[in-house]
Amino acid sequence: MKHIRVFAPGTVANLGCGFDVMGLTLDGVGDLLEIGAEEGAEGLEIRNLSGMNLPENIEENVITPALRAMLAAYGRPVRIEVTMLEKIAPGSGIGSSAASSAAAVYGLNELLDRPFSGKELVEFAMMGEALIGGTPHADNVGPAVLGGVVLIRGYEPFDIVRLPVPDNFFYAVAHPAIVVSTKDAREVLPREIPLSKAVEQWGNVGGLVAGFALRDVALIGRSMHDAVVEPYRKGFIPGYDELKELVLAEGALAMNIAGSGPSVFALASDYGVAQRIAAQMERHFQSRQIGCHTYAGRVSNAGARVVEQ
Amino acid sequence: MKHIRVFAPGTVANLGCGFDVMGLTLDGVGDLLEIGAEEGAEGLEIRNLSGMNLPENIEENVITPALRAMLAAYGRPVRIEVTMLEKIAPGSGIGSSAASSAAAVYGLNELLDRPFSGKELVEFAMMGEALIGGTPHADNVGPAVLGGVVLIRGYEPFDIVRLPVPDNFFYAVAHPAIVVSTKDAREVLPREIPLSKAVEQWGNVGGLVAGFALRDVALIGRSMHDAVVEPYRKGFIPGYDELKELVLAEGALAMNIAGSGPSVFALASDYGVAQRIAAQMERHFQSRQIGCHTYAGRVSNAGARVVEQ
Repeated sequence: MKHIRVFAPGTVANLGCGFDVMGLTLDGVGDLLEIGAEEGAEGLEIRNLSGMNLPENIEENVITPALRAMLAAYGRPVRIEVTMLEKIAPGSGIGSSAASSAAAVYGLNELLDRPFSGKELVEFAMMGEALIGGTPHADNVGPAVLGGVVLIRGYEPFDIVRLPVPDNFFYAVAHPAIVVSTKDAREVLPREIPLSKAVEQWGNVGGLVAGFALRDVALIGRSMHDAVVEPYRKGFIPGYDELKELVLAEGALAMNIAGSGPSVFALASDYGVAQRIAAQMERHFQSRQIGCHTYAGRVSNAGARVVEQ
Repeated sequence: MKHIRVFAPGTVANLGCGFDVMGLTLDGVGDLLEIGAEEGAEGLEIRNLSGMNLPENIEENVITPALRAMLAAYGRPVRIEVTMLEKIAPGSGIGSSAASSAAAVYGLNELLDRPFSGKELVEFAMMGEALIGGTPHADNVGPAVLGGVVLIRGYEPFDIVRLPVPDNFFYAVAHPAIVVSTKDAREVLPREIPLSKAVEQWGNVGGLVAGFALRDVALIGRSMHDAVVEPYRKGFIPGYDELKELVLAEGALAMNIAGSGPSVFALASDYGVAQRIAAQMERHFQSRQIGCHTYAGRVSNAGARVVEQ
């Protein structure tokens, strides 16, 4: 049985105005797994050496539906062994489940000599997201597979556009030790929104996409506002407005909620600024007796990839 | 007094999903005027040799508030004489008023040795739109001044992004002899829309902007859907659904309402297809006893410009 090691990066979904349609790839944080495949045999085995708590039952592991969707499309039996080696903390808001699914499908595609396109890999990995969130969505698995910034134009039919990220473009992410369920984060949102707010939001989505496509960092910063979702979800994050003010004063281009929260992320065009923002986020939550993990690094054009053993 | 001749092109606003935030420049149709300026003197005179009906009173002409806004910013007296030579038919839905305002401010800026940026010219020309529509908007004057495709990210502060249009990208526009007032077209829209529709729409706006930025004509076609406004406004246009089906079957990348209607436009990557679509649109309205003017041509990267006398 041939084995390879695969890394898939952490990701941030939504990007403010890009609620449910955009995601971005982080450098320096992600999942590492080893995957082996044997054609003609059957069975799936997942071992966990990552040190993180993961479900013992493989039916509850996001990797399982992702790989099964891929095998169904492949149409021939394959025995697969996966060993999780390093794992983003589950619930951290930077695409922990997406990184696992993305790494698994990317690795299996390599082992099978690449029968599937990047877009197809995203669609398989989405089945892992469906296991958790109920509906398949691609705003984390898209960038985890493809890298860069990803726009999901629509799901019927599935249409995904990858945009490059500018060089020298950095992130800070803070994961406060608060639990906000995806269900609660969904239910707090209104079912209807004013048309005027929607227009404001799609103007910003257009600006954000143009900013990435034209590599205009200032335009990215100006566009990353969320008139629709942030007002409802920020209530889950203690002192959100105050933190945002501090972070913007420190030189962030923008700050918003990462995915459905409670993590927050900020973007900056300077690594030192991103580091200072991460420290500021940590102090903010700690001063409220909330533990906090922070990350700072470069926004990445590289998605899932094979790494040397 | 120095005189120059200035042309500003017709434009299509909204572009389906880009309701209130996008517009596109047409080649081969527009307004032509002669403008003269004399510093130190005062007064504004507008003559109409275009053959189109225009208000006699200059206070009712869109050019007046546009030029006055520019002079207020200039801060010194200038006497201006404008002669309208050729004019898009008012109410045709391809930015007739915007072309006049754009040509006037572009021309005066040239005569004054270019004290203002393109973005500032758009802001002056918006004052002409405010005279008609009540609120200043830039989805026609933006492309009429700057050319290409224009995204208005937002108005507070005013932020406009110009994107190039692909080569070999063509339009067909039909202007049926129906009157739909901008007020009626506005009032038929709901004040609130489902969040899910809004997300669908901003996914498409992102796709449309990415399509122009990446010069991906197929993506432009896939993205130019309007889940929000078209369902309400198409009722003003007899046989809209049937026409759209015919036009798409003929090879159009997309068809939608031009601005607030009643004109419709379609895009195609072939000039012959655009011409056949224009003919089809004409037959469609004529078979319903509705007169119709059609245009077909290239989508243009060129906005307002000085032309040789």
